[in-house]
Amino acid sequence: MRLFTRKLGDKAGLPPGSVVHVGDASDEEVRITVLDYNADTYTETEVTDLSKLELAKASDTVTWVNVSGIHDTATIKEFGDRFEIHPLALEDIVNTAQRPKVEEFDDYLFIVLKMFYPSGDGASVLSEQVSLILGSSFVISFQEVEGDIFDPVRERIRKGKGQMRRRGADYLAYALIDGIVDGYFAVLEALGEQVEQTEAELLENPSTATMQTMHAMRREIILLRKSVWPLREIISTLQREELSLIQEGTLRYLRDVYDHTIQVIDTVESFRDIVSGMLDTYLTSMSNKMNEIMKVLTIIATIFIPLTFVAGIYGMNFEHMPELRWSWAYPLGFWIAILIVGSGMALYFRRKTWL
Amino acid sequence: MRLFTRKLGDKAGLPPGSVVHVGDASDEEVRITVLDYNADTYTETEVTDLSKLELAKASDTVTWVNVSGIHDTATIKEFGDRFEIHPLALEDIVNTAQRPKVEEFDDYLFIVLKMFYPSGDGASVLSEQVSLILGSSFVISFQEVEGDIFDPVRERIRKGKGQMRRRGADYLAYALIDGIVDGYFAVLEALGEQVEQTEAELLENPSTATMQTMHAMRREIILLRKSVWPLREIISTLQREELSLIQEGTLRYLRDVYDHTIQVIDTVESFRDIVSGMLDTYLTSMSNKMNEIMKVLTIIATIFIPLTFVAGIYGMNFEHMPELRWSWAYPLGFWIAILIVGSGMALYFRRKTWL
Amino acid sequence: MRLFTRKLGDKAGLPPGSVVHVGDASDEEVRITVLDYNADTYTETEVTDLSKLELAKASDTVTWVNVSGIHDTATIKEFGDRFEIHPLALEDIVNTAQRPKVEEFDDYLFIVLKMFYPSGDGASVLSEQVSLILGSSFVISFQEVEGDIFDPVRERIRKGKGQMRRRGADYLAYALIDGIVDGYFAVLEALGEQVEQTEAELLENPSTATMQTMHAMRREIILLRKSVWPLREIISTLQREELSLIQEGTLRYLRDVYDHTIQVIDTVESFRDIVSGMLDTYLTSMSNKMNEIMKVLTIIATIFIPLTFVAGIYGMNFEHMPELRWSWAYPLGFWIAILIVGSGMALYFRRKTWL
Amino acid sequence: MRLFTRKLGDKAGLPPGSVVHVGDASDEEVRITVLDYNADTYTETEVTDLSKLELAKASDTVTWVNVSGIHDTATIKEFGDRFEIHPLALEDIVNTAQRPKVEEFDDYLFIVLKMFYPSGDGASVLSEQVSLILGSSFVISFQEVEGDIFDPVRERIRKGKGQMRRRGADYLAYALIDGIVDGYFAVLEALGEQVEQTEAELLENPSTATMQTMHAMRREIILLRKSVWPLREIISTLQREELSLIQEGTLRYLRDVYDHTIQVIDTVESFRDIVSGMLDTYLTSMSNKMNEIMKVLTIIATIFIPLTFVAGIYGMNFEHMPELRWSWAYPLGFWIAILIVGSGMALYFRRKTWL
Amino acid sequence: MRLFTRKLGDKAGLPPGSVVHVGDASDEEVRITVLDYNADTYTETEVTDLSKLELAKASDTVTWVNVSGIHDTATIKEFGDRFEIHPLALEDIVNTAQRPKVEEFDDYLFIVLKMFYPSGDGASVLSEQVSLILGSSFVISFQEVEGDIFDPVRERIRKGKGQMRRRGADYLAYALIDGIVDGYFAVLEALGEQVEQTEAELLENPSTATMQTMHAMRREIILLRKSVWPLREIISTLQREELSLIQEGTLRYLRDVYDHTIQVIDTVESFRDIVSGMLDTYLTSMSNKMNEIMKVLTIIATIFIPLTFVAGIYGMNFEHMPELRWSWAYPLGFWIAILIVGSGMALYFRRKTWL
Repeated sequence: MRLFTRKLGDKAGLPPGSVVHVGDASDEEVRITVLDYNADTYTETEVTDLSKLELAKASDTVTWVNVSGIHDTATIKEFGDRFEIHPLALEDIVNTAQRPKVEEFDDYLFIVLKMFYPSGDGASVLSEQVSLILGSSFVISFQEVEGDIFDPVRERIRKGKGQMRRRGADYLAYALIDGIVDGYFAVLEALGEQVEQTEAELLENPSTATMQTMHAMRREIILLRKSVWPLREIISTLQREELSLIQEGTLRYLRDVYDHTIQVIDTVESFRDIVSGMLDTYLTSMSNKMNEIMKVLTIIATIFIPLTFVAGIYGMNFEHMPELRWSWAYPLGFWIAILIVGSGMALYFRRKTWL
Repeated sequence: MRLFTRKLGDKAGLPPGSVVHVGDASDEEVRITVLDYNADTYTETEVTDLSKLELAKASDTVTWVNVSGIHDTATIKEFGDRFEIHPLALEDIVNTAQRPKVEEFDDYLFIVLKMFYPSGDGASVLSEQVSLILGSSFVISFQEVEGDIFDPVRERIRKGKGQMRRRGADYLAYALIDGIVDGYFAVLEALGEQVEQTEAELLENPSTATMQTMHAMRREIILLRKSVWPLREIISTLQREELSLIQEGTLRYLRDVYDHTIQVIDTVESFRDIVSGMLDTYLTSMSNKMNEIMKVLTIIATIFIPLTFVAGIYGMNFEHMPELRWSWAYPLGFWIAILIVGSGMALYFRRKTWL
Repeated sequence: MRLFTRKLGDKAGLPPGSVVHVGDASDEEVRITVLDYNADTYTETEVTDLSKLELAKASDTVTWVNVSGIHDTATIKEFGDRFEIHPLALEDIVNTAQRPKVEEFDDYLFIVLKMFYPSGDGASVLSEQVSLILGSSFVISFQEVEGDIFDPVRERIRKGKGQMRRRGADYLAYALIDGIVDGYFAVLEALGEQVEQTEAELLENPSTATMQTMHAMRREIILLRKSVWPLREIISTLQREELSLIQEGTLRYLRDVYDHTIQVIDTVESFRDIVSGMLDTYLTSMSNKMNEIMKVLTIIATIFIPLTFVAGIYGMNFEHMPELRWSWAYPLGFWIAILIVGSGMALYFRRKTWL
Repeated sequence: MRLFTRKLGDKAGLPPGSVVHVGDASDEEVRITVLDYNADTYTETEVTDLSKLELAKASDTVTWVNVSGIHDTATIKEFGDRFEIHPLALEDIVNTAQRPKVEEFDDYLFIVLKMFYPSGDGASVLSEQVSLILGSSFVISFQEVEGDIFDPVRERIRKGKGQMRRRGADYLAYALIDGIVDGYFAVLEALGEQVEQTEAELLENPSTATMQTMHAMRREIILLRKSVWPLREIISTLQREELSLIQEGTLRYLRDVYDHTIQVIDTVESFRDIVSGMLDTYLTSMSNKMNEIMKVLTIIATIFIPLTFVAGIYGMNFEHMPELRWSWAYPLGFWIAILIVGSGMALYFRRKTWL
Repeated sequence: MRLFTRKLGDKAGLPPGSVVHVGDASDEEVRITVLDYNADTYTETEVTDLSKLELAKASDTVTWVNVSGIHDTATIKEFGDRFEIHPLALEDIVNTAQRPKVEEFDDYLFIVLKMFYPSGDGASVLSEQVSLILGSSFVISFQEVEGDIFDPVRERIRKGKGQMRRRGADYLAYALIDGIVDGYFAVLEALGEQVEQTEAELLENPSTATMQTMHAMRREIILLRKSVWPLREIISTLQREELSLIQEGTLRYLRDVYDHTIQVIDTVESFRDIVSGMLDTYLTSMSNKMNEIMKVLTIIATIFIPLTFVAGIYGMNFEHMPELRWSWAYPLGFWIAILIVGSGMALYFRRKTWL
């Protein structure tokens, strides 16, 4: 995850509602797919010419238009003109640095969300911005790249599984949000495993790599929090306010996804506490290790440095050193002195519980 | 306690209300016991065939159905169909990663709780999910495994002790919640003793094991908090809202259990502060120890290294070293110099309060 | 102060309202004293037979019944039966692990408080639970052991000093609460002096004992906070709610004691911040000391180790070492080399500001 | 600033409203000055006999009575009796440990504030308690010692500068509060300079004194916070509530001083964050220094200890050491070995970026 | 960014509404430019004589007066007198230490904001105070120095781009605020890059400079927070309150800039968390490095000190040292002993995973 989307500053000075893409450049073609369904019928088409797309305000079918690829601002603008989407909403759709939010416009609700999924190799977490426009009988969704996160929803529509086909556009919007929140759990699971692994590593054999993993996890958690807290606000707004676009029957489902969001937040906060505790543990374990290293050095040095001094004395070349001539000086005197000093030191260290 | 229930991500993409078991696999048989009582009568049966179980909405007895074993989703589903439990509630019952919560449905209240108890050997804390469905004259409780936490309640019903038999289903639900909260105290007591023990250890003779215990306690506290805070919310909801299922007379009891919950939270938060303070103390005591070790090394090295140098000088083989020939050089000159240098150093260290 | 009152878990499974003593066992006799007074009269008796005690609901005197010793649950129960005290209140009176709280019953207010006082030797803080039952014309107070904290109030009643005798039972309750809050100030003063002493010690000559004192203070503060915050809630409840038992004129006095409570909280929080800052200072001062120790070692070792090496070279017994034979090698060559190396090192250390 | 005003506990047990001086003893005479003014006239007198002082409730002049010296409780009591000030207010006036607060009485507002000013030598911060009683046409102010903080206000009244003389007693009270808040800025400025100085010191050449300064600043900030937060509450109360004593036109001025208070709070909180960050930086810089010290020691020791060992070998007196006899052993063999080992070590350290 | 604007204390004692410049002295000439426009016409003039400037309350054009240079208090005062700006507002305009705020006056809104921009060399962040006065048909803006932050707005007016020319003074005020908030993003981007760079440095090769950069970033973040949080309050006030000066149609735009402010706050808070995490990581990495250094020292010392002692023994000059005479003592006995001791130590260190 990046800390901050670059080049946002380029927008400075432009009038509000300027549709300028902020995010990774992409060569991908914009793809627009349309799913039109009700309990009985179901059609799926791909649109290339926007002028042929119609979104009736009152309709007996629900229409889901999915746009993948938001770097093509021309198409987005055309979209906006055709379906009377407010320029400020368009601006937010193509600005991938947008904070998750919900906004009520006259005829529709505009929702910006962040999607998270593990990268291909599972080593890091990727994020993508998803915008939803919920009208009375349609949902328009905008994705950065074509992904498979909405596939289960699509599948449910195709197969007529669950209540999907019997319910309105608001339920479809709920299903999409639910799919995104489900994605958070996958990321949390991966993160949870990493936390547990790192914790085991930490208690057994901490290394510099452990520290770097902890740092990376901490950072990931900070960025996750930044997306998860506004998400809670969004769903809470959808539930609480008198939004005519949300039907009574969908409220319980929104409550369910709200509960999930709270659970995500709880888990992220727990992870945060745990990782911060791990850093403390790491620091103390480093101190412990250092103490052990220093004990070894001190014991060895404290025993041998005085002994070496004694040996040094009798290595001196003074002419008048009577001890040197005594017969038992070396075999008895010297070795006994050495033994006494050495074992005295050892006893001292044992009393200090260093040995 | 596990950090995160694995395999939750498997549910991603399923329609809401899918009854998928999330948690530890289990081979245990599902057991359904039914207790039917009022102030006068009392019957206890075990049910194997769900179709024979009846839960009259209006009844002059209170019926308590206890289901232990929620891994058998087929039975749970049958249960749901038979007693018209909302699919979203069923989904939560079998999802052991569910956050504690209360939800109001048309005819019943749905409550999810976490139960905590010390493991057999007392070394760690185990948790289990308990769900309650409170109707006008019945309570259905779902446990992960058959446990003895509800036994005191069962006993009170059997013996007709207290007010149990004279009161309605809401009082039974209260009694079950009260039993679960009592379990928290047992866990806190065990944790409290561990905290005190570790604290004593910390101040007397901290070791690497102390650090690991502190880390484990911290983690346990984090996970406890995650369950305790929503519990407070739940009981507060039960008390405050105009829930027709809760009778006036039960409110005071709910207030009592609410007080207990607050006390649990206070204690958990105190433990958290204390353990975090212990980590600081540990770190400082490590620093202290290190300082002491280094003092010993420094004192020894600082006294003997210069002395060894002096001895080294007179161990040199230069032909023209006049000192070597002086008669009193060694017995007087050398030893006096040594004594002066040595005691000078000792004085210096004493002035620095290192000795 | 103990971290957690043991044996609380023994209560698990008992029906609510079970009067079980939780706390320190005691052999002391229960003593019940009764003070009956109004502006004109005043009687003081000791009661041994509860059946003779009367508490008229409407009365022109205020009756204060003080019960010291709550371990005798039989007496407490008899009390409860006689004066129609709710079993849940009785349960809380004898449970010394109860959190401070206020609860409104039909005819009376039930208040649980914690009293703090320094231990005899002033080294630690003791706490005791005090419960009050405030009726229309009586106050019943329950203490763990007979103490002198209520003596000033008693004295004021006896002497008719202040407004005590002219006011009702609610004023008496206020006076008792005020006495308890005054006790907090005494504890805070003692703690404040200890904080200042430890701080001086910390900046002058920190030792392991300093660290242990800081740890103990931190723990004491954590436990104080746990009692003080609910106290604020209690007095705020007494003030704000429409409690018919509290007369208009007493409100200003409650506001006064509320201010005191806020002041206690402010002071406790300041102490907390200060002690946590002291720990940081201690850690940095340890680092400082270590740096100084290491500097001494490094300076000595870095100067003498190379010199010893040089001396070692000329102590070698090679037959062909021409230097050994030069006349001025030792008196000039060697000593000059030594001086240059030694003073070079000293200069280097001075440049590093280590000397 | 003292941590805690001593001897507060002496008040324990006294009835509420006892006028007992808590604070530093003082020999100073109490001085009472009276300023009486309106837009046209202006008189300034010093009062020695309280019985001659009159405070008309309705008056066409504003009367400002300033009392400096609150240790003389007799005078304060007489004051209270004469002008019908509530005993609880009197008690707070003479208790310098009182928390800042505002209280509404029947005919007047009672305000307690803390004043801060740098000590004479600028090294520390002194605080003083100021109490204000605001009536319909008078303000009574109580100071601990005679100070110059109200001089600018007095001057403005004398010179008729600004709106002072054209406005009522509430504006006078505002002007006094404004003067006190201005004093906070002076203290903050001094503190800010100290923070910047210490910061520079910290990054260039941190010493033990730096640490002690940081500790002192942290403590000062904690005590400042304790006074500033309640101040905000006070001014907010003066503004928001329907206080008949505050006129419409004064509200904007109160809002201005409220803004200043928020600014003081913001600045104090920033200082707190900065000082806490400085402590972290100090700790890391200590670690850095230690690492550098240890590197020097390790490099020297690691290079010379093995070399000394080699020299030691050839200083041995074994009879059969063939190397000793080889002609080139010393001039070539020994020195080349030494050079290889020495430069090998140096290279190793360079690779580790220690050199 | 400076911690605290100096010389604020000079204002102490002045009556409220004193127009005293607080901030950097400047020699720049005050420049007043006037832009008068509506959908059709557009005039741009520079004013030198204030008496010729007219601001009609009701007008069919919007007039934007920009004043750069607020150090010339005489001009500001003249301004105030002429256009009836409240003295308290004038005081705030020239006090660059003012906290961001919005205040409603009878005929206009007064807004104080902080502008941030990177310094010329990009190494630090500069801030400037901007005040806005929004009337029914005019906006007066005050800048400290002439800058280019409002140029894009000016350009849009000139070119008639966007809706600028078709909308009222409130939209102009919004556009100016929006421009200032856009400036925050530029600063955040620069900060974000610095954070990422420092993070990379930290994980690869931390140095003292890294620590100083972290300290500087932390400080910058603290000061940014101090400006950003009140900004949120301001825009929220503009939106929420019933301000007749803000038209319905502008509210959505204010909501947009509000969202941006929240995003700025979120990002600043994330940066704060990340930088604080970096400090922890730095400290642990220092500990790691120290451990490694100490390992090298300990290994070398522990292997060679005992060996040197052995060599020392056989360098002694005792006459009776039989070992010295054995033929194989040196070539075999000595070297084998050395090898055994040396490799024993090496094995020991390998078992401790130090090698």
